[in-house]
Amino acid sequence: MTGTLRVLKGHGTENDFVVIPDLDAVVSLSPSLVQALCDRHGGVGGDGVLRVVRTAQATEPDIAAQAVDAEFFMDYHNADGSISEMCGNGVRVFARYLQRAGLAELPEHGTGPAADGYAIATRGGIKRVHVKGRDISVDLGPSRLRSESPVVTMDDPPWGRTDRPGTAVDMPNPHVVVELDDLSQLAALDLATPPRVTPPLPDGQNVEFVVRTGPSSITMRVHERGVGETRSCGTGICAAVVAVSGGAQTGSWTVDVPGGQCSVSWTEAGSLVLTGPAVLVAEIGVTEEWLAEHR
Amino acid sequence: MTGTLRVLKGHGTENDFVVIPDLDAVVSLSPSLVQALCDRHGGVGGDGVLRVVRTAQATEPDIAAQAVDAEFFMDYHNADGSISEMCGNGVRVFARYLQRAGLAELPEHGTGPAADGYAIATRGGIKRVHVKGRDISVDLGPSRLRSESPVVTMDDPPWGRTDRPGTAVDMPNPHVVVELDDLSQLAALDLATPPRVTPPLPDGQNVEFVVRTGPSSITMRVHERGVGETRSCGTGICAAVVAVSGGAQTGSWTVDVPGGQCSVSWTEAGSLVLTGPAVLVAEIGVTEEWLAEHR
Repeated sequence: MTGTLRVLKGHGTENDFVVIPDLDAVVSLSPSLVQALCDRHGGVGGDGVLRVVRTAQATEPDIAAQAVDAEFFMDYHNADGSISEMCGNGVRVFARYLQRAGLAELPEHGTGPAADGYAIATRGGIKRVHVKGRDISVDLGPSRLRSESPVVTMDDPPWGRTDRPGTAVDMPNPHVVVELDDLSQLAALDLATPPRVTPPLPDGQNVEFVVRTGPSSITMRVHERGVGETRSCGTGICAAVVAVSGGAQTGSWTVDVPGGQCSVSWTEAGSLVLTGPAVLVAEIGVTEEWLAEHR
Repeated sequence: MTGTLRVLKGHGTENDFVVIPDLDAVVSLSPSLVQALCDRHGGVGGDGVLRVVRTAQATEPDIAAQAVDAEFFMDYHNADGSISEMCGNGVRVFARYLQRAGLAELPEHGTGPAADGYAIATRGGIKRVHVKGRDISVDLGPSRLRSESPVVTMDDPPWGRTDRPGTAVDMPNPHVVVELDDLSQLAALDLATPPRVTPPLPDGQNVEFVVRTGPSSITMRVHERGVGETRSCGTGICAAVVAVSGGAQTGSWTVDVPGGQCSVSWTEAGSLVLTGPAVLVAEIGVTEEWLAEHR
């Protein structure tokens, strides 16, 4: 009954992942195996897979080239088997794994310039992380306000009108942020179907619904493109702060999501830093019988 | 990083469970720990917990009394932390664990009278299991047709009328079975909200929507009371067969559910036997950091 594939499960504000330590890149990770592992009823369950690979062993030449700066590469796969460039909560869980496994020493936040963060290679380029108390922070780079002024329409919305103006933000993935009036509106929102965005952004969008709860705090829910409502979205949290902060690019915001709480601040260079919990839940040995059926 | 609580995950037609081997009944399993373990994003994930306890070690005297017949007790907990008497798919996964762990030898189906099945103690009494090829079968006891003739009403149902007659079946938990005309109706059904049953059964009900696909085969979807739509329900599968078979109590039916396929037959004594896959997915060591937060 001994497991033949050793993985872990971890989460950052309940954005959860199957972590596969595969330093020498020997695991054959087909889209169907990713789907089966991420299946919440028939498999291990997760929003995606984080494969831990030595950057120098990566088969993609542009990734292997990052080995100069980053020892490990986060090979991220969505639950549907597709490949994604980056995942803001995923990279924090990835860093937690490296720390707990003794593969990396993560520097404390504030002990040096932001550029001194521990470097992790991703398909979206090098990302730098710090520890901050019990949390892990990651520099997600600068945001970009888009020129579009989309309108978000929902059928029978709880706030009694069908259209609300949205703010379009690239992080660099596309987001549309909509402010609501109060928490009861936010709670009543039905996100079972995707909110309609007019005009839609060229590559689709995640939609964040946000309520201000203080001078530097918001509560939000998010609908991720192609996924549905999730309990947290790292880049969505940053996009929401960009939309409500009116371009200030200073200070620190706390953001409550269904899966927990994160904070967002800026570096002097204008990068957004996402900070929050990153928890390893369990070490997992997948059984031979399961693997034989899904390999 | 070594796990401090060793569990497994298994499923029967994607009705999935956290299995906790605790032969000497030393694990303190609070409702909040059950909830946290079953949480699909922040925990291990499952429809419930199956604690494996030596029957003689059970604290409940009426369970310990079953030790004469059954070495092991299935201490079943729902995902919400409440306790349930029985779970038809759960007992099959429980038996698979005993078999794989070398704790029990399960007899082959058909090699003796049904009463010779391997005995498992549950809060719903002794249940007997067999292996049948790659599957595991369990004797779920007799059904009882209820005297009520409930009507099931749904808003905007795909079959173009709002009311359908239901058949009320105790297994012994309460079910209402509704026949639809074809698979496209079944597929179009919106089970996001509970179907309305008039009059409702005294303790509520699971509702099964069923389509006949052959002389002894059906396809169904199920809405479980207090849970929502699930991918499978062992007693619901039996109740559906009882409703469509018109009291014949002979033969064998195949039942397709979203999570896979089971079969149902009768013993000579009139008990319903549920047969289907029972898979151990993984061995899991919950981390100390997670447990410290949820114990």
